[in-house]
Amino acid sequence: MRMVDIIERKKEGKKLTEEEISFFVKGIVDGSVPDYQASAFLMAVVFRGMDEEETSYLTKWMMNSGDVLDLSDIPGIKLDKHSTGGVGDKTSLSLMPLVASFGCKVAKMSGRGLGHTGGTLDKMESVPGTNVYLSEEAFKKQVRDIGIAIAGQTSEIDPADKKLYALRDVTSTVESIPLIASSIMSKKLASGSDAILLDVKYGKGAFMKDVPSARALATLMIKIGRRLGKDVRAIISGMEEPLGKAVGNALEVKEAIATLRGEGPSDFVELIENAGAILLNQGQVAKDLEEGKKLIREAINSGQGLAKLKELFAAEGGDASYIDHPEKFPTAAYEFEIRAKEGGFVEEIDSLSIGHAAMLLGAGRSRAEDNIDFAAGIYLEKKVGDEVAPGEVLARAYSNKEAVKEALAEIEGAYVIASEQPPLLPLIREYIEA
Amino acid sequence: MRMVDIIERKKEGKKLTEEEISFFVKGIVDGSVPDYQASAFLMAVVFRGMDEEETSYLTKWMMNSGDVLDLSDIPGIKLDKHSTGGVGDKTSLSLMPLVASFGCKVAKMSGRGLGHTGGTLDKMESVPGTNVYLSEEAFKKQVRDIGIAIAGQTSEIDPADKKLYALRDVTSTVESIPLIASSIMSKKLASGSDAILLDVKYGKGAFMKDVPSARALATLMIKIGRRLGKDVRAIISGMEEPLGKAVGNALEVKEAIATLRGEGPSDFVELIENAGAILLNQGQVAKDLEEGKKLIREAINSGQGLAKLKELFAAEGGDASYIDHPEKFPTAAYEFEIRAKEGGFVEEIDSLSIGHAAMLLGAGRSRAEDNIDFAAGIYLEKKVGDEVAPGEVLARAYSNKEAVKEALAEIEGAYVIASEQPPLLPLIREYIEA
Repeated sequence: MRMVDIIERKKEGKKLTEEEISFFVKGIVDGSVPDYQASAFLMAVVFRGMDEEETSYLTKWMMNSGDVLDLSDIPGIKLDKHSTGGVGDKTSLSLMPLVASFGCKVAKMSGRGLGHTGGTLDKMESVPGTNVYLSEEAFKKQVRDIGIAIAGQTSEIDPADKKLYALRDVTSTVESIPLIASSIMSKKLASGSDAILLDVKYGKGAFMKDVPSARALATLMIKIGRRLGKDVRAIISGMEEPLGKAVGNALEVKEAIATLRGEGPSDFVELIENAGAILLNQGQVAKDLEEGKKLIREAINSGQGLAKLKELFAAEGGDASYIDHPEKFPTAAYEFEIRAKEGGFVEEIDSLSIGHAAMLLGAGRSRAEDNIDFAAGIYLEKKVGDEVAPGEVLARAYSNKEAVKEALAEIEGAYVIASEQPPLLPLIREYIEA
Repeated sequence: MRMVDIIERKKEGKKLTEEEISFFVKGIVDGSVPDYQASAFLMAVVFRGMDEEETSYLTKWMMNSGDVLDLSDIPGIKLDKHSTGGVGDKTSLSLMPLVASFGCKVAKMSGRGLGHTGGTLDKMESVPGTNVYLSEEAFKKQVRDIGIAIAGQTSEIDPADKKLYALRDVTSTVESIPLIASSIMSKKLASGSDAILLDVKYGKGAFMKDVPSARALATLMIKIGRRLGKDVRAIISGMEEPLGKAVGNALEVKEAIATLRGEGPSDFVELIENAGAILLNQGQVAKDLEEGKKLIREAINSGQGLAKLKELFAAEGGDASYIDHPEKFPTAAYEFEIRAKEGGFVEEIDSLSIGHAAMLLGAGRSRAEDNIDFAAGIYLEKKVGDEVAPGEVLARAYSNKEAVKEALAEIEGAYVIASEQPPLLPLIREYIEA
């Protein structure tokens, strides 16, 4: 078998066999398929696509390119969730303690962030003492003992994806539904959970620009999961604005805590209730989504979600007193106000601009080796649908740097003010079970 | 400017600017654009194409990636020709001495062969003593003195093409009209001639599978040439069978000599007369093609073409007595006959199979470092349209190896015998002036 023939066949729009796909995946990991062949192949896939069967084989061989976590010795249904990315996305920190508080098992491997704010691991590290690097042994023990662990990869998960993702990023081959689906699903499946909830974002700044393509991606991932024996479901949610009001590491942790106290911003609460309901249904705690939502609301009111978040931080070495006393989180030296030039209604808040501004303020990395300023970030006083008067504060920016003109201009530019109130769409547009 | 953005734009079907194209070409030569980005870009071009203007810029910057020969100090019109490849193609050795014998200047850089028989340089080396490596100084002096030089590259011509061609070969990005056109034209234009005749082959085994695509390629190359100030014309010829009867290095040189003696096979003579007429018109020797054909026939009859071939070999150190005494060429130790199993008419002789068989017999290289056996090859006793009786000899194979079963089977398999005489098409299907 020769890689050039596999490229040729895909270029001609032919369907590849499992053998051809495994040859490609093994080759990129062991180096026998050089990068220049891999990138030509990826571009051919961008144009020709892959069907469900091919994408399943690709996912399977990517998953098997590294270690696959075996969680079968942990009793109960192991749950995981994945979001295709968003600014202000602190979902894991509110949602997963809530579902874990009902006895579902959460064994979640997360990542760091590049480009705007930090990833979940960075956010967790804003609580002093937290060590997100657990051995596989410790990771599984924690899931068994307290029902939840959120940590970095315990071993070499999915090296094929690392390699392919790095290549796709510099060859303009990111935007391909089968390539996105296999990248997400291979990592999730290698993490060993039984049931996965996907949050597929759409809109400007998301991979998927509209609902039909988000639906196509979601449906494909669900089918791949089913083929590999997992209960995968998806929600499709809009990206007209960042999620919640807080953007930036400590700011987001504080918002996640507030949400578990019943004081969360409405869009984020909507997401938590709906996603939590689905996960509780997947975890066989709730018989349907209505019951699930009720249970999530009760767990917020009773404080059992917040208690689980404290357990999570304590188990990973973090100073859990920060959860009860969020005022302990460090604050930035400088606070800036961004005010509306004209009056009207907020129609859109460009997430990419907000994310980029947050990075400039110090909340994210522009290069992998950059340090994160946990206190830096943005607080959106006004959200989509809100009325604003001329001169009213739209947002506040926090930084330990004084010269942040570019960031402030970007925040101002992110706000689209209209003269009439925009139609208010629900955050979650669709729920896809199969 | 970033290569990933250029890839993205081409992927989206946008038209690239001259700056973007020059960034790409310079980058692949100086290494600042890595191979994996180049190959993703090439695949995007395969799918999206390039228009005439983009292809002209690509050609221009490839041409300028290395040395560009300046022949302006040689008086007269400098002519060149290029064939897109064919088995048994000894055209340069008959055609160019004929046109040079009329005072046109031929400054031709040729290559070696890989895959089936040798290239023109290999064929020339079957005449003992021939040294095809001339300095630029010696090359130009020879053109000035005797009107013709056929040699290897005198300096670093078109390094961008070398790099791109190697990459295209292993990434299934060879078949793209703008990439083929720019590869051919950038090399030809860097060789410094004023007028170029292109022989674009079509059919099974050729890059171009049908007349419309061959015409598209030819037309594009003519337009690129015109944009860069050259008189470029093209013929489109069929590849239903190898050209002439001889396939293999010394065998082909002998056939080229025979043709200059008026004893050439009819298809090859047809090509020489037509191509020669066009070149004499380009060289302002013949006022039209009719006069050109007449002049070529006369130059064959008078022996002035043969005399020029002798001058050519003598100038490059070859033993010119071989031209007068072709019986001096070494013969192979073994001769094999391939006979028809059934009677009928030859409908097709698959060129690729014949070329591959010739390579197995020793006439070509499977790897660049392989040696060529000048005596090895195939002589096609029967050509397309010929009637054959069962058991009659179709072809003879020559080799210094005794075990050539695979090659003989391939020659037999190359012949397609039909019960009825196929319609006889002219070798040259079209002549395109502009």
